[in-house]
Amino acid sequence: MCRWMAYSGEPILAEELLFRPVHSLIDQSLHSRLGVETTNGDGFGIGWYGEGPVPAVFKSIDPAWNDRNLREISRQIRTPLLFAHIRASTGTPVQRSNCHPFRYDRWLWMHNGAIAGFHDLKRDMMLAVDPSLYAEIEGSTDSEALFHLALTYGLAEDPPSAVARAIGFVEDLARRHGVADPLQMTVATSDGESIWIFRYSSERRTRSLFYSTDIAQLRRLHPELEVLYRLGTGTRFVVSEPLRDLTGAWNEVPESSYAVLHPGEQQILPLRPVEPG
Amino acid sequence: MCRWMAYSGEPILAEELLFRPVHSLIDQSLHSRLGVETTNGDGFGIGWYGEGPVPAVFKSIDPAWNDRNLREISRQIRTPLLFAHIRASTGTPVQRSNCHPFRYDRWLWMHNGAIAGFHDLKRDMMLAVDPSLYAEIEGSTDSEALFHLALTYGLAEDPPSAVARAIGFVEDLARRHGVADPLQMTVATSDGESIWIFRYSSERRTRSLFYSTDIAQLRRLHPELEVLYRLGTGTRFVVSEPLRDLTGAWNEVPESSYAVLHPGEQQILPLRPVEPG
Amino acid sequence: MCRWMAYSGEPILAEELLFRPVHSLIDQSLHSRLGVETTNGDGFGIGWYGEGPVPAVFKSIDPAWNDRNLREISRQIRTPLLFAHIRASTGTPVQRSNCHPFRYDRWLWMHNGAIAGFHDLKRDMMLAVDPSLYAEIEGSTDSEALFHLALTYGLAEDPPSAVARAIGFVEDLARRHGVADPLQMTVATSDGESIWIFRYSSERRTRSLFYSTDIAQLRRLHPELEVLYRLGTGTRFVVSEPLRDLTGAWNEVPESSYAVLHPGEQQILPLRPVEPG
Amino acid sequence: MCRWMAYSGEPILAEELLFRPVHSLIDQSLHSRLGVETTNGDGFGIGWYGEGPVPAVFKSIDPAWNDRNLREISRQIRTPLLFAHIRASTGTPVQRSNCHPFRYDRWLWMHNGAIAGFHDLKRDMMLAVDPSLYAEIEGSTDSEALFHLALTYGLAEDPPSAVARAIGFVEDLARRHGVADPLQMTVATSDGESIWIFRYSSERRTRSLFYSTDIAQLRRLHPELEVLYRLGTGTRFVVSEPLRDLTGAWNEVPESSYAVLHPGEQQILPLRPVEPG
Repeated sequence: MCRWMAYSGEPILAEELLFRPVHSLIDQSLHSRLGVETTNGDGFGIGWYGEGPVPAVFKSIDPAWNDRNLREISRQIRTPLLFAHIRASTGTPVQRSNCHPFRYDRWLWMHNGAIAGFHDLKRDMMLAVDPSLYAEIEGSTDSEALFHLALTYGLAEDPPSAVARAIGFVEDLARRHGVADPLQMTVATSDGESIWIFRYSSERRTRSLFYSTDIAQLRRLHPELEVLYRLGTGTRFVVSEPLRDLTGAWNEVPESSYAVLHPGEQQILPLRPVEPG
Repeated sequence: MCRWMAYSGEPILAEELLFRPVHSLIDQSLHSRLGVETTNGDGFGIGWYGEGPVPAVFKSIDPAWNDRNLREISRQIRTPLLFAHIRASTGTPVQRSNCHPFRYDRWLWMHNGAIAGFHDLKRDMMLAVDPSLYAEIEGSTDSEALFHLALTYGLAEDPPSAVARAIGFVEDLARRHGVADPLQMTVATSDGESIWIFRYSSERRTRSLFYSTDIAQLRRLHPELEVLYRLGTGTRFVVSEPLRDLTGAWNEVPESSYAVLHPGEQQILPLRPVEPG
Repeated sequence: MCRWMAYSGEPILAEELLFRPVHSLIDQSLHSRLGVETTNGDGFGIGWYGEGPVPAVFKSIDPAWNDRNLREISRQIRTPLLFAHIRASTGTPVQRSNCHPFRYDRWLWMHNGAIAGFHDLKRDMMLAVDPSLYAEIEGSTDSEALFHLALTYGLAEDPPSAVARAIGFVEDLARRHGVADPLQMTVATSDGESIWIFRYSSERRTRSLFYSTDIAQLRRLHPELEVLYRLGTGTRFVVSEPLRDLTGAWNEVPESSYAVLHPGEQQILPLRPVEPG
Repeated sequence: MCRWMAYSGEPILAEELLFRPVHSLIDQSLHSRLGVETTNGDGFGIGWYGEGPVPAVFKSIDPAWNDRNLREISRQIRTPLLFAHIRASTGTPVQRSNCHPFRYDRWLWMHNGAIAGFHDLKRDMMLAVDPSLYAEIEGSTDSEALFHLALTYGLAEDPPSAVARAIGFVEDLARRHGVADPLQMTVATSDGESIWIFRYSSERRTRSLFYSTDIAQLRRLHPELEVLYRLGTGTRFVVSEPLRDLTGAWNEVPESSYAVLHPGEQQILPLRPVEPG
């Protein structure tokens, strides 16, 4: 099981997001509380929007908790939108090109979960990827294949529809290969302005996904917490596991649903797979 | 341009092959004499036959010349058949899964050269790979794709025919995509008993490839050279660049040809692409 | 907390030792049972005796569980004496030169534990190292410093005495710096023929250390266990945590003691620090 | 031989400095023109001033030319003062802690050159380092030792005097050890406001070091060069090898001298070793 977090809000040092919270993602990389696997030591990555419209990505196959370069740059990166992901490989090689977030043009994508039977489904999934995108795939993960399927189905125009079609395609394909319950996913994607998050699994038992409560409301609940005044009111966090125990801070994204997060705004809607015609 | 060497003969310490020669492959990794690029610092790999029928591979993305683990294990590996390869990337990521030699079952494969227009040809090449082999491809190089094409065309049964068909397929495909002179390759492959080597390029200007003169004959030419008595009479070297300057030691493999090397025996034959259909 | 294991016995494939046991060291690197830290992902190393009197070492800063080269070479290394160590850094950099086992000439050394206040004691420890050995120290750990202190005090002539003096030196030094209970250590060292193991901590609460029961006796206890017939009767394992749950298989090394293991023989004696002069 | 460059001027993207010039440092890492060794593939590092007074460092043991993270972050780092260094090891391990620039508090330090006989001189050099600084040394290079000697001699108060005393100490020490001509160095150091550069070798044959001509003057010489209008008039480059061939652009720092570079100002003065006591 991988873990990830997404931040949207006032420009902030990445260090504040990655290393400061009591139960930060980096800390989680060593000790999980909700996860099945204990360790996320198979590489990590961050993606952020800064100079120019195309996001930057920094990825490494070192465990996140001992990567000194990550600490160094996290003190220098100030960003209004950051993705961070720590990986636990399910078999594919530990190499930079298999680390999340994946990028295409202005888009970032990260995934926690797996596609059951990927070894058998891979070829057909890759054939369904738009030929013009095919050679952009550099790694060997199910996550990157799913991203390129979504791109093929129009992620850049309508993310929820594209993801619904990618899901539908995989479930249809799995059925034809005799693979039950192929999909398990919490996904985040962004174009630098909004963040779309998805929680879905074929068997309707998806791994956890939480979004943060409105900061203004949190300040009313916890007026003594200084950190809440350092965060802008438009702040949004999305996390696979809560960053710290704080009553009222975290809301679970419901099963089979997605949300669009703009600064200070969000909408949760049902996610229904769209099978190929 | 990559570089490689293959050894077949009496079991010998890998160190003798990799680090001892005056102009060894490791030394070449820093300083080329015949090559275009000056440096082969984008990863390396060795493959060898030892315990069991399946060869072992050791690959790293560190430059070969400063990899201490390579030095350590090369003093412990005693093998009758070794492949070694140093890489100069032409753009694909520097990651372990892109390092040569590639392995499938008992087979090793390494390649120096490139497929022009690979970005455009890649999808069709991958589609032509046998579906049962498709998901075994872990990296993103033209070399690994070519290997799997050759496997698809029966490498394990008849290597020269399989390679001729793989070449023919790529040239036919390139023609349809408007890519001129797609192939540039010197390739070595082995099943642990014989080594097959191939020198071919679509424009008939293939990079260099040499095989060593019979040791008995070399001893007559250079009776003063002690090292020649440490090597068995069945010894065969194949190299992209001569390991040391020694009159009479190296014979160029002719353009568009291949050879089969058994201990103490070899046969050079013309290599003619076999186009599909 | 690090973890380690040592094997002495009939020549055996490293794979049998590292990957086959139910609760192997590699498995432990992901999931500890007795340890405080959950993860040993800060590099690993193995050392073994094979060709020639000087042992080979293979070390990497990748987590052991996902290092493919370790898997590859472990299927080719056949050795009568192997050390393996997985690291959890307490702050010093994750770099090859800080990975265990350390080597000097024919000697290997690995350590689980720490020297409290090492930052303050380091300079004086290094000054106490024999000047001819000083420049051989390549890393920055307390473990390597302790090894070179022991070498200075005659490890190659009389390991128990040298270690007792190294311990005494550190405790005396710590006292002068106002550092309480400086030492925490389980150590293994070897010259390729015998293995010496040490369990000691200044506060007499040393981390666990176990040695294996005589194989002949184990066969009587567990006649159904096939694996016991694959191991020679002179087999000795020493481990920081038992490799598998097996009644009667593991014996704890007592607090403040050391043992010498020859094939088929062992002797446990008290370890008493010898303070400098 | 290593290579380095330093930039001071208007805040600029690191990418402009590292990847854009025709003969950039990254390009030099593959192909040297003035150097003896052909390749600088043994790690690299950059240091820069940005958020906060303490500079950030990003270092890696991958060759600079194929490090994708370096490309990524160089598009996001905007800095008025950058150091960059590519390493060719002379034997010490290729590990992050041996990569330049080194940092202490607000200070950066990078070095091209070597201390002859360092293996023999190391212990005495380390003893001369202020005990409070001793444990800060993480790597094993002569360059880092020299930095800490300079810190010991007051680098933070008076850099030229501290470096003169460090040089004097090493030359005196070498004489006592029978090592001739111990020092070979071009060094840059900075506190984030000024840059001090040093060119010195005991045998007075120091490797090359160049500083850039005043931009206003360069614009008069090359009015057609657009790039000169993108650089502020206070721009200063210091490089071990010229970044591009441009008549009048580069001035050699004379043998045995140092310079202080403030924005738009510089002063070249003789450097005379100050021996101890």
